[in-house]
Amino acid sequence: MTELIENAGASLSGEAESLQTAVHAITDRARSASRQLARANRAWKDRALLAMGAALQAHEQLILKANSADLELAQAAGTSAALIDRMRLTPERIKALTAALENLASLPDPVGTVVRGQTLPNGLRLRQVQVPMGVVAAIYEARPNVTVDIAGLALKSGNAVILRGGSAVSQTNIALLGVIRDALEEVGLPADAVQSVDAYGREGAAVLMRARGRVDVLIPRGGHELIQTVVNNSSVPVIETGEGNVHIFIDQSASVSSAVEILLNSKTQRPSVCNTVETLLVHAGSAALPAVLTSLSAAGVRLHADERVLGLLPAGVQAELATDDDWAREYMGLEIAVKLVDSMDEAIAHIRRWSTGHTEAILSNDLSNTERFVAEVDSAAVIVNASTRFTDGGELGLGAEVGISTQKLHARGPMGLSELTTTKWIVHGEGQVRG
Amino acid sequence: MTELIENAGASLSGEAESLQTAVHAITDRARSASRQLARANRAWKDRALLAMGAALQAHEQLILKANSADLELAQAAGTSAALIDRMRLTPERIKALTAALENLASLPDPVGTVVRGQTLPNGLRLRQVQVPMGVVAAIYEARPNVTVDIAGLALKSGNAVILRGGSAVSQTNIALLGVIRDALEEVGLPADAVQSVDAYGREGAAVLMRARGRVDVLIPRGGHELIQTVVNNSSVPVIETGEGNVHIFIDQSASVSSAVEILLNSKTQRPSVCNTVETLLVHAGSAALPAVLTSLSAAGVRLHADERVLGLLPAGVQAELATDDDWAREYMGLEIAVKLVDSMDEAIAHIRRWSTGHTEAILSNDLSNTERFVAEVDSAAVIVNASTRFTDGGELGLGAEVGISTQKLHARGPMGLSELTTTKWIVHGEGQVRG
Repeated sequence: MTELIENAGASLSGEAESLQTAVHAITDRARSASRQLARANRAWKDRALLAMGAALQAHEQLILKANSADLELAQAAGTSAALIDRMRLTPERIKALTAALENLASLPDPVGTVVRGQTLPNGLRLRQVQVPMGVVAAIYEARPNVTVDIAGLALKSGNAVILRGGSAVSQTNIALLGVIRDALEEVGLPADAVQSVDAYGREGAAVLMRARGRVDVLIPRGGHELIQTVVNNSSVPVIETGEGNVHIFIDQSASVSSAVEILLNSKTQRPSVCNTVETLLVHAGSAALPAVLTSLSAAGVRLHADERVLGLLPAGVQAELATDDDWAREYMGLEIAVKLVDSMDEAIAHIRRWSTGHTEAILSNDLSNTERFVAEVDSAAVIVNASTRFTDGGELGLGAEVGISTQKLHARGPMGLSELTTTKWIVHGEGQVRG
Repeated sequence: MTELIENAGASLSGEAESLQTAVHAITDRARSASRQLARANRAWKDRALLAMGAALQAHEQLILKANSADLELAQAAGTSAALIDRMRLTPERIKALTAALENLASLPDPVGTVVRGQTLPNGLRLRQVQVPMGVVAAIYEARPNVTVDIAGLALKSGNAVILRGGSAVSQTNIALLGVIRDALEEVGLPADAVQSVDAYGREGAAVLMRARGRVDVLIPRGGHELIQTVVNNSSVPVIETGEGNVHIFIDQSASVSSAVEILLNSKTQRPSVCNTVETLLVHAGSAALPAVLTSLSAAGVRLHADERVLGLLPAGVQAELATDDDWAREYMGLEIAVKLVDSMDEAIAHIRRWSTGHTEAILSNDLSNTERFVAEVDSAAVIVNASTRFTDGGELGLGAEVGISTQKLHARGPMGLSELTTTKWIVHGEGQVRG
């Protein structure tokens, strides 16, 4: 309680103040670097991306050694095998990071695009032009690939970036950051375009979240808890990404074979990601239920079903009773919740109550149903007769993906490089004044 | 301190809890109304806007009577004449509100616009379409015109709105809200499309600011203090509007007569608004300084000048020494700060330090100077050789103005109806799955 009272006070303790000064010095260097980046043309930024990719290859051993040290500590601390796998870098994974940077270099540069323009009646020439945000910050978990990924996306869109990664891979991130910063200097761009506040721990992250005016946008990448912490504690504008409690609704008119194929793909093609389906809603008049349940079960998917579905289980299919917990959960694995509904309105009402607004799909051959579902479901992506796995920047043609926004401000759904820019109004006249 | 500790606790007191329940009931009704509005076509929404405008005229006496009651209380409380003037409604001002609603009805509807679309290699048809945000909230000061203004803008863009106005005009706002809600019902739209939390005081506003997920965007309109309170206390995404510490830089090559005309217009045409110039930076090599100072002074503008300018004052011109306070201030009146600089870099450095990122202008006939100023000044609007008063939604062809955003997320600079919408990705297939 003493701590709470002290933190509630208006003046910071000496330690907190010097920490704030240190983090603000980082944001100042980032602002200064961002000005140089904003002036760098595409060719220059692409050279930097290729240099970063090559440097990752050249320093593979150094990076792997730092990563081994992190993994050893994590193993000693009893970290789960799944988490350790996410922390692990291998020569193949480093090659994939290099390939991703090379892909970024091949993409068009959003900076400088004229969004709209006209000559006004009074002769003023008006252009609204895409420009970099300035200073972008990212707070994420112990996944070293995100360090390289976000650094590349920020650079290509002309932004300086400040990273806060999971402390469990701090040595890996230090190694990656060193390699990236050297590569930037090598091509004549400022190393401070990519910085980290990892050395300042949780308190450093807290200062970053309150650095409104110094940081232009904050992107949390990770699980529910991390995202909610950032959303609730930031005064810097946040883009909320990635939580997907995704639904598929099968109406009476849907093709059974197509429904089976889409359900299997949406649930099993990569179950640990946010665009995987988590709840299946089936119209009581649909013939698809038995075939869908049988094929999901055969694919090793654990079923959580409401009472009516439990009464309709095909031979050999097991399921347990679904609770409100199941309607709310993102399983991120081979599990699915299944519910029978008597109308599309009931399906839409269920989606309204439980969805995170990421992606929902309808499988149907009924035009008025599909039109109404598309109009009434308020999610970033609404899909008709296709897999929910298509809600992805790469699949939708954005080239690279910053994340999938589940908020409505600035960006909604898959975010590409353009979403890391803002605009500037440029007005040219020859003496015009207002009458 | 006891209060602080109690507020820091996880559980709300009974009173706070019932207040939260009441405000959440308002957001629930707003969400439900927003679904009906999202389905209303333009013709229907325009009928509602015209009905609202007509109802303001029909109930003019009722509104003026409520306003008189507010003004009496304010006068008794010793409120300043300037503030009372902002609170006052007159038959002419109500006519202007009706005219603004009629203008909104004449503008195109952003909802349904296809932002981009394509057929993907796998045959998926992809559209990104503008849709309403859903529930918009506005927190503003004791200005009854904002109540009507925001209600109209929200309605036209298909959003439900929750208002929190200044308590000094609470009776006026109750009257306006009643008239507007009746007009909505008259054309068959839900009255709950326009609601207020004014009955719940400051605590109601605080609940609104924390209603992330229930409210999609929060727009503060008012002075520095109000905006900072909202920015620092909201978990709902905020669009920061309206603070303008606007600069004009005159370089050596600028036409003296044009500089005089632009400065006078930028400072005196309507000094109380955010796009009025507040600081003038003049290159030491420019010939414009004496003429500009003389004409500003003759127009009744009070000058705050740095030491070098004080040494160069033309005959008959008075000025006082400018301090850091002057560089930071939005005068919102007939005052200006003036500084001599030895280079454009010095001017840009001054702007970086003191600007709020709203609007800056350069007056120059030098191409490389104007290009560099436009590229390096990081503000929502950068103007070459024209009045800063043009940073305005109406002037720039947006038709109506929600406010002028000084942040980089979602909207930057003048915001029109489009900025009150978000987008939805709609994907149509015939069974496509990911490989």
